[in-house]
Amino acid sequence: MDYRIEKDTMGEVKVPKDKLWGAQTERSRNNFKIGPAASMPLEIIYGFAYLKKAAAYANCDAGVLPKEKRDLIAQVCDEILEGKHDEQFPLVIWQTGSGTQSNMNVNEVVANRAHQLAGKTIGEGEKTLQPNDDVNKSQSSNDTFPTGMHIAAYKKVVEVSLPGIKQLRDTLAQKAEAFKDVVKIGRTHFMDATPLTIGQEFSGYVSQLDHGLKALENTLPHLGELALGGTAVGTGLNTPEGYAVNVAKHIANFTKLPFTSAENKFEALAAHDAFVETHGALKQLAVSINKIANDIRMLSSGPRSGIGELIIPANEPGSSIMPGKVNPTQCEALTMVCAQVMGNDVAISVGGMQGQFELNVFKPVMAANLLQSAQLLGDACVSFEEHCANGILPNQERIEHLLKNSLMLVTALNTKIGYYKAAEIANTAHKNGTTLKEEAVNLGYTTAEEFDQWVKPEDMVGGLK
Amino acid sequence: MDYRIEKDTMGEVKVPKDKLWGAQTERSRNNFKIGPAASMPLEIIYGFAYLKKAAAYANCDAGVLPKEKRDLIAQVCDEILEGKHDEQFPLVIWQTGSGTQSNMNVNEVVANRAHQLAGKTIGEGEKTLQPNDDVNKSQSSNDTFPTGMHIAAYKKVVEVSLPGIKQLRDTLAQKAEAFKDVVKIGRTHFMDATPLTIGQEFSGYVSQLDHGLKALENTLPHLGELALGGTAVGTGLNTPEGYAVNVAKHIANFTKLPFTSAENKFEALAAHDAFVETHGALKQLAVSINKIANDIRMLSSGPRSGIGELIIPANEPGSSIMPGKVNPTQCEALTMVCAQVMGNDVAISVGGMQGQFELNVFKPVMAANLLQSAQLLGDACVSFEEHCANGILPNQERIEHLLKNSLMLVTALNTKIGYYKAAEIANTAHKNGTTLKEEAVNLGYTTAEEFDQWVKPEDMVGGLK
Amino acid sequence: MDYRIEKDTMGEVKVPKDKLWGAQTERSRNNFKIGPAASMPLEIIYGFAYLKKAAAYANCDAGVLPKEKRDLIAQVCDEILEGKHDEQFPLVIWQTGSGTQSNMNVNEVVANRAHQLAGKTIGEGEKTLQPNDDVNKSQSSNDTFPTGMHIAAYKKVVEVSLPGIKQLRDTLAQKAEAFKDVVKIGRTHFMDATPLTIGQEFSGYVSQLDHGLKALENTLPHLGELALGGTAVGTGLNTPEGYAVNVAKHIANFTKLPFTSAENKFEALAAHDAFVETHGALKQLAVSINKIANDIRMLSSGPRSGIGELIIPANEPGSSIMPGKVNPTQCEALTMVCAQVMGNDVAISVGGMQGQFELNVFKPVMAANLLQSAQLLGDACVSFEEHCANGILPNQERIEHLLKNSLMLVTALNTKIGYYKAAEIANTAHKNGTTLKEEAVNLGYTTAEEFDQWVKPEDMVGGLK
Amino acid sequence: MDYRIEKDTMGEVKVPKDKLWGAQTERSRNNFKIGPAASMPLEIIYGFAYLKKAAAYANCDAGVLPKEKRDLIAQVCDEILEGKHDEQFPLVIWQTGSGTQSNMNVNEVVANRAHQLAGKTIGEGEKTLQPNDDVNKSQSSNDTFPTGMHIAAYKKVVEVSLPGIKQLRDTLAQKAEAFKDVVKIGRTHFMDATPLTIGQEFSGYVSQLDHGLKALENTLPHLGELALGGTAVGTGLNTPEGYAVNVAKHIANFTKLPFTSAENKFEALAAHDAFVETHGALKQLAVSINKIANDIRMLSSGPRSGIGELIIPANEPGSSIMPGKVNPTQCEALTMVCAQVMGNDVAISVGGMQGQFELNVFKPVMAANLLQSAQLLGDACVSFEEHCANGILPNQERIEHLLKNSLMLVTALNTKIGYYKAAEIANTAHKNGTTLKEEAVNLGYTTAEEFDQWVKPEDMVGGLK
Repeated sequence: MDYRIEKDTMGEVKVPKDKLWGAQTERSRNNFKIGPAASMPLEIIYGFAYLKKAAAYANCDAGVLPKEKRDLIAQVCDEILEGKHDEQFPLVIWQTGSGTQSNMNVNEVVANRAHQLAGKTIGEGEKTLQPNDDVNKSQSSNDTFPTGMHIAAYKKVVEVSLPGIKQLRDTLAQKAEAFKDVVKIGRTHFMDATPLTIGQEFSGYVSQLDHGLKALENTLPHLGELALGGTAVGTGLNTPEGYAVNVAKHIANFTKLPFTSAENKFEALAAHDAFVETHGALKQLAVSINKIANDIRMLSSGPRSGIGELIIPANEPGSSIMPGKVNPTQCEALTMVCAQVMGNDVAISVGGMQGQFELNVFKPVMAANLLQSAQLLGDACVSFEEHCANGILPNQERIEHLLKNSLMLVTALNTKIGYYKAAEIANTAHKNGTTLKEEAVNLGYTTAEEFDQWVKPEDMVGGLK
Repeated sequence: MDYRIEKDTMGEVKVPKDKLWGAQTERSRNNFKIGPAASMPLEIIYGFAYLKKAAAYANCDAGVLPKEKRDLIAQVCDEILEGKHDEQFPLVIWQTGSGTQSNMNVNEVVANRAHQLAGKTIGEGEKTLQPNDDVNKSQSSNDTFPTGMHIAAYKKVVEVSLPGIKQLRDTLAQKAEAFKDVVKIGRTHFMDATPLTIGQEFSGYVSQLDHGLKALENTLPHLGELALGGTAVGTGLNTPEGYAVNVAKHIANFTKLPFTSAENKFEALAAHDAFVETHGALKQLAVSINKIANDIRMLSSGPRSGIGELIIPANEPGSSIMPGKVNPTQCEALTMVCAQVMGNDVAISVGGMQGQFELNVFKPVMAANLLQSAQLLGDACVSFEEHCANGILPNQERIEHLLKNSLMLVTALNTKIGYYKAAEIANTAHKNGTTLKEEAVNLGYTTAEEFDQWVKPEDMVGGLK
Repeated sequence: MDYRIEKDTMGEVKVPKDKLWGAQTERSRNNFKIGPAASMPLEIIYGFAYLKKAAAYANCDAGVLPKEKRDLIAQVCDEILEGKHDEQFPLVIWQTGSGTQSNMNVNEVVANRAHQLAGKTIGEGEKTLQPNDDVNKSQSSNDTFPTGMHIAAYKKVVEVSLPGIKQLRDTLAQKAEAFKDVVKIGRTHFMDATPLTIGQEFSGYVSQLDHGLKALENTLPHLGELALGGTAVGTGLNTPEGYAVNVAKHIANFTKLPFTSAENKFEALAAHDAFVETHGALKQLAVSINKIANDIRMLSSGPRSGIGELIIPANEPGSSIMPGKVNPTQCEALTMVCAQVMGNDVAISVGGMQGQFELNVFKPVMAANLLQSAQLLGDACVSFEEHCANGILPNQERIEHLLKNSLMLVTALNTKIGYYKAAEIANTAHKNGTTLKEEAVNLGYTTAEEFDQWVKPEDMVGGLK
Repeated sequence: MDYRIEKDTMGEVKVPKDKLWGAQTERSRNNFKIGPAASMPLEIIYGFAYLKKAAAYANCDAGVLPKEKRDLIAQVCDEILEGKHDEQFPLVIWQTGSGTQSNMNVNEVVANRAHQLAGKTIGEGEKTLQPNDDVNKSQSSNDTFPTGMHIAAYKKVVEVSLPGIKQLRDTLAQKAEAFKDVVKIGRTHFMDATPLTIGQEFSGYVSQLDHGLKALENTLPHLGELALGGTAVGTGLNTPEGYAVNVAKHIANFTKLPFTSAENKFEALAAHDAFVETHGALKQLAVSINKIANDIRMLSSGPRSGIGELIIPANEPGSSIMPGKVNPTQCEALTMVCAQVMGNDVAISVGGMQGQFELNVFKPVMAANLLQSAQLLGDACVSFEEHCANGILPNQERIEHLLKNSLMLVTALNTKIGYYKAAEIANTAHKNGTTLKEEAVNLGYTTAEEFDQWVKPEDMVGGLK
């Protein structure tokens, strides 16, 4: 392969000739061969593109960067955001814990690409832009990486997680409305219980998601706080007057999202509790969604030896050996995602708890895990909504059959004859394999007419008064 | 031991004569010998006492319970809340997952104690109150247990966790103010970095706790939603008109806390996402606090071979073998609590994700873990505040010594001579064991006067502009 | 309350007159008011009693402790092991992370009680034994606490966890044998699948537990390694020749368990990977057991609207509102324990990963969590075995009904007519609500005779060839 | 794009013309757009290639597959193993939880590629091989996917994790030997303690890894058990006599690894405790490694304001803003990997605990997490060894300076003058900022000569006697 020579403060490094990156990127590529290449999420690189452009603007506003340099930097950042340089970011998550080398990767790519845009050849002539002194001006890895990861995470949550989960929530709400009069047997402890409607059952799912969505939204203000302007340790050393607030405004402007300058930059570098907080809400949603998906697969189990109250769409042949089998595969994908989110929560918390002094050096692992959870949850909810929830239908015949036979309808008698006599009726019917009515009359606790009048499933679901 | 005979719908049971509980409690005691006895938290029993009293009032208001029965129930509940019957609740966490038997334990104790208050002997004469038909009227374990656990958890958070953490937060804020002019070396990656003040460092801790406290408070509305009125499956079967809302008002009144009736009772029985949510915030705080406690023990390490910038109180002899040793024991207790909270979060989430159909049957384990975390975090913050944070002092001499020798002061030269020359100065001084100034002058990059003018630690911490 | 004055190297402390503990215990009691009092597990105190006695013997053997002092120490340790002094250990888990104060608690109690045994009054006259110089001779908290916790954990695992889990394993094995000819429908993805016998299904549970028990036993050698003899940092400073090996022998002798002296004392103080390892196996068993308990509650769901293939014992009234309800409460207790163990695993791992330099200071939290898991898993398996597994019966009628109707019997035709035609038969029967045989014949793929010959459930479970 | 029509039992599907996959793969691609495409690990696909080839051989041996079909299948599998068809496996982890569609993906690719090898055009003429009836003969997704994931995991552990961790272990052992005479101050609770040698300190790390490696190896027999032969539910339906054992032998032969046929196939489909077990050991190693990496970064902290006892290699410029900074970046990458492994352990456990009836449907997520952990741990240990551990040197000057000043050398006096007087010396020296010797003499507890004779650091590390 053809190489060119790049230099940094430690000396010379050979870099593939056709690549835009420089010495420090290449060092990192060689020093951290851990897992697949280029695992650092592109979303973070794009977050960097926003912030490098914003920093160039803020530096220019403050009079410490010429307009031409600002525009060159902005032009390359726009190219990056258009996806034109995706292959120029080969580094992995498992590098320095501050993400320094990914910051330098961006600095080097911007500087070298700007050199090209200035009509020159990389590695020849005076540098058009210096990676550290120009592209990284008024910045440190310690404030740029957290800023990049906050931008990436915020965008992912509002663009993927929230809309995906809401799409599922809305469909479940429609189902709750559509099935609001379908009375069915309830189940507690997996055992037959008093009746309710499918609509009521699904309204519980909707309520879970509503609470979860609100919890997720509650975390956004913290996630929207940006570290930029703190530089090395949070003091803002080497930044011009007014820079921190101004750069956050530029980022908000470029992204159309309500980012703010973190009130306390020391926290913003040394701790990533905002990630713990936001991921905590994603984990709460995973807990909720796991319950919902589990219910739906159990309610649709069968076709002949399960519960079978719900019919879900058949999307693919279910078995490579059992012909004609249909499985709740969307439930499975979704609950697997939930298991992943549960695990990611621990990875993020373990990273978050180990910040030391002025810096938390678990930034890339925290960022990668949150981005994965946010993406997977959003995608999986959409997939589940489109290929499963949306097509759910009640199996009327089955539902009525089960309801009619239920022993727990006896509960309606509590207020008429007391808990203890009602229990005797249910126990006797269970033992004899008979109906409640038969035994109620046999035992002399009700007349047949009273029984019919008092035990009406449709009256037992009247909702909360 | 002396016994009396108690009955339930399954038959007779021998119960210790001097105990107020009945047949179902005794069955549970015999059927669940798992771990230490009486592990079900008393806070939950007290939660039950509030709700049984409130239910009696709401039932009476609705005309389905006579005033005399209401008052008897209320009287026993008050006795329970005064701690007079703590030994009457022998059941364990590891029972039925709906907490049914603890609900019955309370029902039975209330009924039997009321019998005594009515001047009768337990087990003799007609029952003054029926455990199921009177004490449990308009209720089910399925809505009482979650109500009891919400009351217990809410109280614990607002009475122990929040004030305890705030006490620590306030002391750290005072320290931040007190030490706002003490300039010290910063550390990133455990390595020397540019300076900041202790005040700035501590302000980061305060900001972490402020965010965490806000996150915890954000969860309170969900935690304040009560299931009561949902009865068996959320439909409110066997409850009188208006009961659910009224009973929540009585609970709010008795506890002086802003409890509300859960808008969706199906969720309130079938899922405990509110516990996942609140504990998520406690876990976030544990992550923050672990960082803070770790920093403080590392900053006070020594006395001669560590960092030694902070002096913490010596509370006890530190070693049974090394004479004169003093250890950061409060930091250790606090970080152990954080480890426990991290674990409890997984226990709660694993419980929360496994609700099925109309009921989550991991209620007791979820409740016990949240109560433990809320108690431990609050207590440990108070302990840490009183016995450590409160007495923290800077070791001025040590701080100045380290600051003066730091190579990272060179960063101030970036804006004067550029990053690359500054790096050369630092590297040369490191290699030669010399000072930055010597090498800056030797290399011809600054004059001695320029160096002194440009490199002033106190100017490097100017805060964010 | 009456007090006496006790002294340590930091000065005087008032101690309740009727207590055997001394100054350092009292300091700890006052400095660590975190959670309920006396939470430090008694099992660890008993572990200390074994090791203090063993140390006294080893010291005497080495000629550094007079025989009379050895015997006095041994006498008090025996009293502790008989449970005579349980109330003398008031300290909490959340103390110094090395457990120093619990070590001193034991040292002080032994010294003061020895003083009494010598016929003197505590606090008067020359001390019969010095807590540090005699009782703690050749020891440090840093090697005694890990030794105490290893003794406690090893005993708990072999005395509670292993026998409890084996009891359940054996009963499941008996059930597997008893039901080895009961052919039933299989279920994959919660959906009907090809048949198997209950015996085969249960044999899978037995195999899970066998693997888990073996995994747990694999961890015992590491857990049996004792730190004693390492003293302060692992070098064995202030221990006599041969002491470490000899003291482990005495402990092995006193406990009748195969304890050994840890080959590397530096690891034994600075890391508690043995606890991570043993708890990892407990967690694996929790994962297995959760699956088993879940299966059993789903298979016994009903009585009329669930799967209902298994009948489990009815141990208590299941509902405070639904008369006659019976619930799988033992499954619920067991799965709640599994959730707790899952959480404890994270607490232990988080503690384990944070050892620093020569000492891990998360000892008490790691020990308490492992002891809890080991106790709960053992107890809950016994409870589940006695009150549930032991009484499991197949519901023959239900099983046969479900089996006969299954569409997945069609799989037997794959090798006769190919997967694709078999699928067509199943799909058609599902659509039309007919039987496989009807459609097989209608579609002309088999004759009625062929069908009967080829599709025999009892031939489809023949086991692995 | 050009398409061709493929069919399965549910109908026709358009498939990109240039791809080897068929209808079911394409359905899955469309139905599961969750996260990045093709996330199903290639290692699992390769595991499938081994097992499909082995199944073809075993089927041929049993006389149910012609030799020509066997050889065609084997030829394609070999091509897959050579990496020639990596782009033919576009499916994601988040699909059906049994991995059915990845099994079908392999079946379809093998069948279509065989058609090509037979000189035909895909989609034209009679199929050379049927995906289900030939390639999948005697198999089900339910036994192939777990077999594929066991093969993949076993290979990863023995080819990446074990050698990588051993490489680090060996280097640490060499360092322990090389530095066995370098006496340094010990640290417990982050505070100065009695001395030890660097060799002793590192020997603790080696011992941790030795225990962890043994724990990991202990899990291999369980991981080596293969499900193949169980088919749909574990009964081995539709497999020829002797097939299960024979197919495992072929796999062992092709992979040169000691795979065996799982003794109990019901467990092998319904539970993946072997993955929980193996990952538990990986997590234990992560706990150990986190401790080691943390120690090394703290011991090398500085260069002027930290501990600075170790010198680690400078691999890259450490800061984009602080010139001349060098950071412990390999420690950071390694500890981030440990955080990930901690999280993955929870994801795997949560998946493992949710198996239902005859099938666990969290297979892909469990497999993907284990493979990631095994790869990352192995890679990161190699990276850390090559770029950090290998180059570690003691900073002799610093070590001696710290040792000389230590107050904890006083511990050597315990056996001469007792703990209490020794404590007085240390406390006085600490208060006065003097040396132990000065105060020992001042206080009249030793002569200067005695002090020099009794307090020799090099005599305090003598190792265990």
